[in-house]
Amino acid sequence: MEGVVVRNIRRADASVVDAFARYGVATVHEAQGRTGVLDAYITPIYAGAHVSGSAVTVSVPPADNWMIHVAVEQCREGDVLVVAPTSPSEAGYFGELLATALKARGVRGLVIDAGCRDVAELERMGFPVWSKCVSAFGTVKETLGDVNVGVVCAGQWVEPGDVVVADDDGVVAVPRDKAAEVLEACRAREEKEAGSRARYQAGEISLDVQGMREALAAKGLRYVE
Amino acid sequence: MEGVVVRNIRRADASVVDAFARYGVATVHEAQGRTGVLDAYITPIYAGAHVSGSAVTVSVPPADNWMIHVAVEQCREGDVLVVAPTSPSEAGYFGELLATALKARGVRGLVIDAGCRDVAELERMGFPVWSKCVSAFGTVKETLGDVNVGVVCAGQWVEPGDVVVADDDGVVAVPRDKAAEVLEACRAREEKEAGSRARYQAGEISLDVQGMREALAAKGLRYVE
Amino acid sequence: MEGVVVRNIRRADASVVDAFARYGVATVHEAQGRTGVLDAYITPIYAGAHVSGSAVTVSVPPADNWMIHVAVEQCREGDVLVVAPTSPSEAGYFGELLATALKARGVRGLVIDAGCRDVAELERMGFPVWSKCVSAFGTVKETLGDVNVGVVCAGQWVEPGDVVVADDDGVVAVPRDKAAEVLEACRAREEKEAGSRARYQAGEISLDVQGMREALAAKGLRYVE
Amino acid sequence: MEGVVVRNIRRADASVVDAFARYGVATVHEAQGRTGVLDAYITPIYAGAHVSGSAVTVSVPPADNWMIHVAVEQCREGDVLVVAPTSPSEAGYFGELLATALKARGVRGLVIDAGCRDVAELERMGFPVWSKCVSAFGTVKETLGDVNVGVVCAGQWVEPGDVVVADDDGVVAVPRDKAAEVLEACRAREEKEAGSRARYQAGEISLDVQGMREALAAKGLRYVE
Amino acid sequence: MEGVVVRNIRRADASVVDAFARYGVATVHEAQGRTGVLDAYITPIYAGAHVSGSAVTVSVPPADNWMIHVAVEQCREGDVLVVAPTSPSEAGYFGELLATALKARGVRGLVIDAGCRDVAELERMGFPVWSKCVSAFGTVKETLGDVNVGVVCAGQWVEPGDVVVADDDGVVAVPRDKAAEVLEACRAREEKEAGSRARYQAGEISLDVQGMREALAAKGLRYVE
Amino acid sequence: MEGVVVRNIRRADASVVDAFARYGVATVHEAQGRTGVLDAYITPIYAGAHVSGSAVTVSVPPADNWMIHVAVEQCREGDVLVVAPTSPSEAGYFGELLATALKARGVRGLVIDAGCRDVAELERMGFPVWSKCVSAFGTVKETLGDVNVGVVCAGQWVEPGDVVVADDDGVVAVPRDKAAEVLEACRAREEKEAGSRARYQAGEISLDVQGMREALAAKGLRYVE
Repeated sequence: MEGVVVRNIRRADASVVDAFARYGVATVHEAQGRTGVLDAYITPIYAGAHVSGSAVTVSVPPADNWMIHVAVEQCREGDVLVVAPTSPSEAGYFGELLATALKARGVRGLVIDAGCRDVAELERMGFPVWSKCVSAFGTVKETLGDVNVGVVCAGQWVEPGDVVVADDDGVVAVPRDKAAEVLEACRAREEKEAGSRARYQAGEISLDVQGMREALAAKGLRYVE
Repeated sequence: MEGVVVRNIRRADASVVDAFARYGVATVHEAQGRTGVLDAYITPIYAGAHVSGSAVTVSVPPADNWMIHVAVEQCREGDVLVVAPTSPSEAGYFGELLATALKARGVRGLVIDAGCRDVAELERMGFPVWSKCVSAFGTVKETLGDVNVGVVCAGQWVEPGDVVVADDDGVVAVPRDKAAEVLEACRAREEKEAGSRARYQAGEISLDVQGMREALAAKGLRYVE
Repeated sequence: MEGVVVRNIRRADASVVDAFARYGVATVHEAQGRTGVLDAYITPIYAGAHVSGSAVTVSVPPADNWMIHVAVEQCREGDVLVVAPTSPSEAGYFGELLATALKARGVRGLVIDAGCRDVAELERMGFPVWSKCVSAFGTVKETLGDVNVGVVCAGQWVEPGDVVVADDDGVVAVPRDKAAEVLEACRAREEKEAGSRARYQAGEISLDVQGMREALAAKGLRYVE
Repeated sequence: MEGVVVRNIRRADASVVDAFARYGVATVHEAQGRTGVLDAYITPIYAGAHVSGSAVTVSVPPADNWMIHVAVEQCREGDVLVVAPTSPSEAGYFGELLATALKARGVRGLVIDAGCRDVAELERMGFPVWSKCVSAFGTVKETLGDVNVGVVCAGQWVEPGDVVVADDDGVVAVPRDKAAEVLEACRAREEKEAGSRARYQAGEISLDVQGMREALAAKGLRYVE
Repeated sequence: MEGVVVRNIRRADASVVDAFARYGVATVHEAQGRTGVLDAYITPIYAGAHVSGSAVTVSVPPADNWMIHVAVEQCREGDVLVVAPTSPSEAGYFGELLATALKARGVRGLVIDAGCRDVAELERMGFPVWSKCVSAFGTVKETLGDVNVGVVCAGQWVEPGDVVVADDDGVVAVPRDKAAEVLEACRAREEKEAGSRARYQAGEISLDVQGMREALAAKGLRYVE
Repeated sequence: MEGVVVRNIRRADASVVDAFARYGVATVHEAQGRTGVLDAYITPIYAGAHVSGSAVTVSVPPADNWMIHVAVEQCREGDVLVVAPTSPSEAGYFGELLATALKARGVRGLVIDAGCRDVAELERMGFPVWSKCVSAFGTVKETLGDVNVGVVCAGQWVEPGDVVVADDDGVVAVPRDKAAEVLEACRAREEKEAGSRARYQAGEISLDVQGMREALAAKGLRYVE
């Protein structure tokens, strides 16, 4: 908490950022070596949203949303706002007026390790939020925090400019400088799964499709009646 | 736990109670000085309900719903039932038969710091519930509690006759004797927000709309590249 | 954790298992003497599913889903998979590929005391899951567990071949050898409730319908103004 | 949150307040009809303390301890400070400097539905605290709250001047105007228990000492081999 | 919940039951194939106790301790009482009077998936309890449960007559008919660890003592500067 | 999770690292601008320990402690081991044999966002641990993680070589390159507090010692009778 706003952060190539929206959070997580998933208590306020974007990060004091207002100005088309309080909070930091301002700038959604409110309005206007809880409890505007510094959000380290992907399964962050490589790994993984999916639909099972029987036997698996 | 039922409680004027349904929980909470919101773990069993009503309060023992049956008789058109156990409980105190009886009396919904069941039926019949959890676990009818005494429900003190407002953001309670004043403050707040909403839609940001830049600078906010 | 797979478990009669789907979880729980409900943190990944089936049980290590792959082969038409980790876990053990394989075998759903992922796809394909959380976090395939042994799932003991019923209220397990008797008790309970429902709709209240006034007075209930 | 400090609150008679320290929290709770216990997550920072005192209450914003400083001035010999945030917080509102000031005024302890820090020093100086957690996370001094208004502390309504009793079992609040009567009920309960204790030590059991066998049989209890 | 008390349960050989007190909970858990440990939220009310005993099990309704009174009569020298509510509860089911009666019968301790109270007295009298929480909140005596049936206690299935071992690390249950075999495995494990302990004290590390380097390299572990 | 061990990390100057043990966690946290405190659920397994050291970090899979064995070799005199699982886990990753090896190398303690076991032995041998829980549940050795990479531990980002300070209030991390500066700030803060402590002991209060009255009045604080 230094009261610093970093401007002009580096983002990944827009075509890369956008292409991530074709892949689910689970796929991205697996494709980058089973890393980057935020804790499971972060859930979408409504079902069906699926976005990717560049992280603009905000470190906020407990129950004080002043720095979110500051962060709006640093956002641009294709960004996702990532907000983390410095101590656990269930206050409702964010509502439809902030969402209106962000939407006008082309921001694609919010990830917040705290509460969100006005959720009915947010769904109506199509601004998706992934949050710790829904809470009408209001915040103050008294204490500074930071914009565009590294933050821990729901158990995950996120730096400004990282790619964030969010869907009904939750949220995953991809380090900016690995984004292109992870995107390619997503493509490969999807392709491979498409092949095995047809075999499962036809009634085959993973013991055979993935060839697990030998390894299981080697570990000592026994079948009894 | 005295085994007392208070009859003929005082309620706020019906026109005031009903008018609160035009305002969201967050607005009401802010309008009365950022107070009255129940803890965020109280969530609606289905999305889209928005009610206001006069609180009929029930203090129940853990996993014993006898007093809810007693409370039904004290409810009338325009009420909301508010139920709080004397020790934390996740039992399913309430289901569709009780809801049928309440609906027949014009009760608008239930707020309960415990579990609710039959949620599919409750949604079908349009009887909204805000609860701590959904739980099929049943209750007994063995021990007395109280009806229409002050209760602590999800971290909030609620007295019989207080106005309760509930929507997708949660639940807020307004003291009966402040209801008219808070309603007026809601109107004023909405009006003010309507004005700034248009500016946000047009691309302005709150740093300017709310004139925050000077105060932020005075606190020492620094911008760096 | 012995690395054992029990084949050819006994199941309840299919007509009995299937008939349970006519009754809600709360009804089944009450009908068998208020037992068998899993803890309330087990929730459906989408609303509206209602299934009954024979339990195929899986005991899995934390964050290791290998034994679910093994269990698929033991499932048949009309089963429900019941998965419990040996230590609390929020990993995402299950997704759409496993669901595809299970669906091809006629499995009706999954109950898991851990995380599930690909929830949007699971809803699209109509494979219902009741889980502790939604989590994209992946699992490994390194350590054995057991299939078709008794497991503790969300606070409830479930044996292979028990009948599992799940709906929007949660999940209940019925011991296999009591299934027919409990089914009959469900029928009786529903019939009785249908009678009282009409009286509630007509404006009567449970104090009268269930004749509670005398017992309440005997306990000392007092009415005051 | 009105920014109000109520001076000159009414307290129970000092001899009554002090006499409560002879009774455990469980005894006081039972003696007043099984009410008044704060939620079980409120625990002492060290074992062995047992105090009674008059409540000076403080309603504080999340992560802001300014009003505790204000409240110190309202405390006097024989008081216990009771602090509740308006939204859940785990910040460390209280440490050894505040304790030094309170101790100098004869305050007997602190009950706080939030975090406390400097716990080693607090134990050394013998200033007991019952808190939600131990947390070094600091607070700000920016936003007003209230002193000596009714507060909800850990699920319990506490008014200024209520008697608070705290020991290793937790904390209980007794309404000021019932204090004398509850104290007498404590004496009676202890006396009765002293009688039965001797019988238990001699090997008798409560089925006989409390004469429960008939009621159990009437409920249908069955003994099987 | 059938209201049944099973008398004359089978217990493991007393010499076996007693010998388990020489081994820690972690050792017993590992010795029986990494099974049997109760969830980590079960903690001792005071440090330093270490007991083994035969389980007398009690299934209790939420916030109703009547069946514990019934269970006392079924206990004898060398037993440990294991209590589990049918729905989560934080009530204080157990205090010093029940402990006095149990101690007079030679019972070695209590494991309860709920609350305990009078903890200072329990420590003074040397009656150890492992519980979910400490809570002064009292219980009623209205509804039957069962004694000496299988129960789920803190995520673990425990049958009457199983061996229970408890220490500062928590609680583990050993099936009665495996007790002798697991005891032998404990002895073997301790012996082996005693050998390696000396090597660790001398500065060797487990990579060498347990010969892990090859397997790590095979998995692909890389060392970088 | 790349399976990488970074050797020869940079540490802060030993005299600086050691000097931090003179300051409490709360002081260090405040001295570096109210940052760096781990979440409050991390608690010491026994009271009274107070250490500072250089962080050796370990990223481990859920319920797999293999990499802790790998990390031992990277530790040296004056280090503190910091362990974080990639998904929430309550398994008991650490016990007295690992502690014996670490103690032989001069390691001062362990901070782990998971479970620890053998706590009685650890206290006897004087090896302090700050953990999420105490758990006897064992771990496997199957999957790689990383040693000496940045980790998120209990909500805080910790890099190898950062200074870690831990006491009864919890744990704080100080970035390596700010250690000297923060140490100086600790000295200054302690000196200042020593001055005000004497005034509090003499009966003055913080409203005067810290000169808060004017700011409170400016915010609108009102005193009423």
